[in-house]
Amino acid sequence: MKIYRANILHTPTPGQLEIIEHGYVAVKSNGRVKGVYKELPQNMDWRRQVMDFGDKLLIPAFNDMHVHAPQYRNMGLALDLELLPWLNTYTFPEETKYADPEYARRLYRRFVHELWMQGTMRAAVFGTIHPESTRILADLFVQAGMGAYVGLVGMNRNSPETLQNTTAELMDGMRMLKAHLDEHGNNGLVRPIITPRFVPSCSDKMLTALGNYAAETGLPVQSHLSENRSEIDWVKELEPEATCYGDAYNKYGLFGQTPTLMAHCCYTDGEEMELMKKNGVYVVHCPMSNSNLSSGMAPIRKFLNEGIHVALGTDVSAGHHMSMLRVMQYAIQVSKLNYAQTKGEMPFLTLSEVFYLATKGGGSFFGKVGSFEPDYEFDALLIDDSYLNYDHYTLPQRLERYLYLGDDRDIKRRFCRGVELVEPTY
Amino acid sequence: MKIYRANILHTPTPGQLEIIEHGYVAVKSNGRVKGVYKELPQNMDWRRQVMDFGDKLLIPAFNDMHVHAPQYRNMGLALDLELLPWLNTYTFPEETKYADPEYARRLYRRFVHELWMQGTMRAAVFGTIHPESTRILADLFVQAGMGAYVGLVGMNRNSPETLQNTTAELMDGMRMLKAHLDEHGNNGLVRPIITPRFVPSCSDKMLTALGNYAAETGLPVQSHLSENRSEIDWVKELEPEATCYGDAYNKYGLFGQTPTLMAHCCYTDGEEMELMKKNGVYVVHCPMSNSNLSSGMAPIRKFLNEGIHVALGTDVSAGHHMSMLRVMQYAIQVSKLNYAQTKGEMPFLTLSEVFYLATKGGGSFFGKVGSFEPDYEFDALLIDDSYLNYDHYTLPQRLERYLYLGDDRDIKRRFCRGVELVEPTY
Repeated sequence: MKIYRANILHTPTPGQLEIIEHGYVAVKSNGRVKGVYKELPQNMDWRRQVMDFGDKLLIPAFNDMHVHAPQYRNMGLALDLELLPWLNTYTFPEETKYADPEYARRLYRRFVHELWMQGTMRAAVFGTIHPESTRILADLFVQAGMGAYVGLVGMNRNSPETLQNTTAELMDGMRMLKAHLDEHGNNGLVRPIITPRFVPSCSDKMLTALGNYAAETGLPVQSHLSENRSEIDWVKELEPEATCYGDAYNKYGLFGQTPTLMAHCCYTDGEEMELMKKNGVYVVHCPMSNSNLSSGMAPIRKFLNEGIHVALGTDVSAGHHMSMLRVMQYAIQVSKLNYAQTKGEMPFLTLSEVFYLATKGGGSFFGKVGSFEPDYEFDALLIDDSYLNYDHYTLPQRLERYLYLGDDRDIKRRFCRGVELVEPTY
Repeated sequence: MKIYRANILHTPTPGQLEIIEHGYVAVKSNGRVKGVYKELPQNMDWRRQVMDFGDKLLIPAFNDMHVHAPQYRNMGLALDLELLPWLNTYTFPEETKYADPEYARRLYRRFVHELWMQGTMRAAVFGTIHPESTRILADLFVQAGMGAYVGLVGMNRNSPETLQNTTAELMDGMRMLKAHLDEHGNNGLVRPIITPRFVPSCSDKMLTALGNYAAETGLPVQSHLSENRSEIDWVKELEPEATCYGDAYNKYGLFGQTPTLMAHCCYTDGEEMELMKKNGVYVVHCPMSNSNLSSGMAPIRKFLNEGIHVALGTDVSAGHHMSMLRVMQYAIQVSKLNYAQTKGEMPFLTLSEVFYLATKGGGSFFGKVGSFEPDYEFDALLIDDSYLNYDHYTLPQRLERYLYLGDDRDIKRRFCRGVELVEPTY
């Protein structure tokens, strides 16, 4: 057992920021939380084991639930372009380079290192169509001790010829990746995820095969949904029998039949929203990306009111930064612009709500992850905010100032599933 | 003369990013640019004086044209509140503390230090109603070597009793501040600016006195305009004879009769826009603040199309961060959300446009400031982006990545009016 003392802040539920000033968290040897305590039990054995972090803040680590690893080199680039030229001139050519495993290794190292740096201990990641490079990416997560769902991407239509795989290649790759991670995935910390890029880039045959594979293995699914208006119209043309964009996944068994992440959902409403709710599909809200690509404002308050799962994602490189702090800020701000435009109809998101989304909201996709409740896996960040805390600030204020003003410099220690992770230097 | 060698990037006009790879900039002893050169003239005397900054980027320094110095302590706080509770519970009580010059000195030191840290070499600043504290703020700018317009704030109605001054107190304070800075303002680098808080907090008598003082002294003016809808309705009630909110300043001679900054302008249109154009009034765009306070999206493309001057401001603490990089990002992103909603009617702002706004757009309010054209005051930042430039990136890409991904760590040297500024440690 390990026992840490610090100011402990977490959100067991969205509206409930729980604060234990100079509290203790006990972590069992299996990496799970035993409990959080204001006073330590009268147990000398426990007392001897306390690691005291003083006045620092201890918070759950962040989970980035939508990010494109092979777009890392393009982060902060080409944001004056609209979606199609951005894809064709920057994104697809970059992803094509990942046919070369050595290129992949060089860039994926930087990607995983930056996740670590930003305090993102788990992520749901898109790779490319290339099995070998995607396996390298998964191995880098394992070596770093971080958690990930790693997706070998399926795309066999409406994409550059150099960036397509056949259904057979995709399924072979998936099986290889699954077998590899079943054995070497750090006891399930790194797992594969079924990843059709999005409906327009996958033939019916590919979607059918992926749906069957989901049913066969129980593996989760990630993709894109209702990101912008022209995409939605396109899907309508391609899948005329689907009653909505979401149904175009649903009819193949790729929409909540196994745990499912759908990024964006800017224009999800009505039937699609109902279907997500009914099937327990997660919305991955990517407000930074949705601003950068002029996609629009997702109706997150409505999703939350409906009881739909919501997580957050950077969506690098349509998102321009890997910091989940930034994503939280954008989530609040976009909801406020929405609030202004609807003249207050839809209350904006609060700080404790987005803190929940960035931690437990996404973490719940991995199981018991994202808070310090008993039996939760201990994923945590130790924050030194002393330069922000130069005057008399309360603990809720210190958290707010860190979330709005902090950056990677403030993170002094990082834990994933109970293990303290050193900087990955491979 | 001083000669610096680096990769030089600046925007003489909004659409025109000028890049001189491994170029030279010569700065005269009066702190003004002599010229920018691809090759140095065959002049041995010049060649001996080159200070070579290697592969780093040299860009104009940033200008924050709307920021509330006494709200610095509240930065990143209370952003779950709406405007009125935010003002009454956080902002006004904090500003009231500046009646104590020692409190002011302690917090204003941090404020000026942070401007320096973020590479903002000049700012247009709101102080409080307190003359002594406002003088201290001005002196801190002088000591740091930075440029500023410093405003003693006028407010004598619709404000807490503890935070009001009389017209006589305000005018006495203004005269004291002007006399002090005429003598000690570092040759005009730090100057006073006439600062009615906004129409609802200033009586007709106060606005009349300030208008007369502007006419008498030629001093510039700063205030708030058309930030949100309920504020506009309120001004209509308070000033029924004014044809628009802007006219409520105009009729007192506070709307371009001397150089004038108006922050926000989210709902400025029609007659008000015409009046701003006719009178040469600057819009100070504060997109971070306008998101945080649910104010709305200012029609910046329209202002630019009309040829109206536009500058950028953090508006701390309604803005949550002092980095002008963040403000640039928000300016682009908000314009993109606007673009999405108007279905492409209003083209979004480009990177070179917002870079112009953050440098020359605001700098022009100080004279020839914000680019490296001949005779411009040399305000510059030296940027070490080597950690971002790990692969083969072009210079426009390096600038874009710095503007989207950089932070204060990347700024290695800072210059204001030709002088290199060390960290203010007072």
